[in-house]
Amino acid sequence: MRIAVFGTGMVGQTLAARLAELGHEVTVGTRDPASSLARTEPDQRGMPGFGAWAQAHPDIGVAAYGEAARDAELVVNATSGEGALEALEEAVADLDGTVVLDVSNPLEFSGGFPPLLSVCNDDSLGEELQRAYPQARVVKSLNTMNASVMADPTSVGGGDHSAFLSGDDAEAKEIVRELLTQLGHRDVIDLGDITTARGVEMWLPLWVRLAGTLGTASFQLKIVR
Amino acid sequence: MRIAVFGTGMVGQTLAARLAELGHEVTVGTRDPASSLARTEPDQRGMPGFGAWAQAHPDIGVAAYGEAARDAELVVNATSGEGALEALEEAVADLDGTVVLDVSNPLEFSGGFPPLLSVCNDDSLGEELQRAYPQARVVKSLNTMNASVMADPTSVGGGDHSAFLSGDDAEAKEIVRELLTQLGHRDVIDLGDITTARGVEMWLPLWVRLAGTLGTASFQLKIVR
Repeated sequence: MRIAVFGTGMVGQTLAARLAELGHEVTVGTRDPASSLARTEPDQRGMPGFGAWAQAHPDIGVAAYGEAARDAELVVNATSGEGALEALEEAVADLDGTVVLDVSNPLEFSGGFPPLLSVCNDDSLGEELQRAYPQARVVKSLNTMNASVMADPTSVGGGDHSAFLSGDDAEAKEIVRELLTQLGHRDVIDLGDITTARGVEMWLPLWVRLAGTLGTASFQLKIVR
Repeated sequence: MRIAVFGTGMVGQTLAARLAELGHEVTVGTRDPASSLARTEPDQRGMPGFGAWAQAHPDIGVAAYGEAARDAELVVNATSGEGALEALEEAVADLDGTVVLDVSNPLEFSGGFPPLLSVCNDDSLGEELQRAYPQARVVKSLNTMNASVMADPTSVGGGDHSAFLSGDDAEAKEIVRELLTQLGHRDVIDLGDITTARGVEMWLPLWVRLAGTLGTASFQLKIVR
């Protein structure tokens, strides 16, 4: 499948590399490719600068959002939650029928720790994206876990945990389910329409405190039933 | 331990019965005991009217909130989320140092389904209770699961799932942890101070949609790590 991954941070890098490894044709979308590629120093968390990462992944393209989305069957939104609307806006001409897999969270760090959600309760980022771009088919998924667990679910508890799907388009959800299965996710629960994105985004405040308590981001929830 | 269970609904009935079975001295607290005991017909969901339930549990006392709390070492708040502040207000003279185990959720059904949270993101019901009654030692726990799973965790997945503690008082959390262990909860994660109640309350919107999708309320989350 031709996949555009929007976002050059840890989530974008991790998912793009893994999807390419699975045989997909991957292009990373970014606002300004030249500027992204010029970043070669590691960031504060020790992630390689995007330019260095791109050099190490010559099979993965790098392009502006619109160009990356142009021929993509699926766009992964791995931008920061706040950047998602803007990123998709730059690709708006190329989203007709496109499956937008939104893995981002509307975390708002401006007030310090713990972050708040910039939208919640009666709305969600997933719904905002679907409303803003009705021509796209938004599916919220994977946002409940760390990037390393998204890309390699077996890294936690042998993969014995759950993932979720929220979206209005049944076919788009099946496409995402198939992709999740390729990644190794075994228990994928279809929650319903895009309003169910509220639930998975509102899981984040618990996720953040668990990461602090457990001293690791390598965990995931399992729905035991 | 002398325990007062506030609330005559399904959660109150289920927890009171189980705690008495474990050997605790249990009194159910309610606003108007005579009125509660007069309800003998089953409710819409088939739960016995409280009067019929009380007759079937002669070892469990029934008293007004204040009287029930008077000699209790621990008060379980199993009122509906919205009734919690009012219920504790009626027992305010008897909460000095009392451990208040808050298992309720601030669910707001007035707008229909799905319910919203009446407080979330930068506050929680747990925090509201602790602020309103600083003389009490509030511990949020068990609110992430159905009453039957609270009382008998082995009823779901053999008990292989997680419970959480949020509260400012370390000793109070240890008392609640011990109680959870008696109930059969094996993985009890201390999230930190009472502000972490936001996370476990904000889990509810996902819980509600999962209950719909799975067609059962008998499930619980496990933190796989």
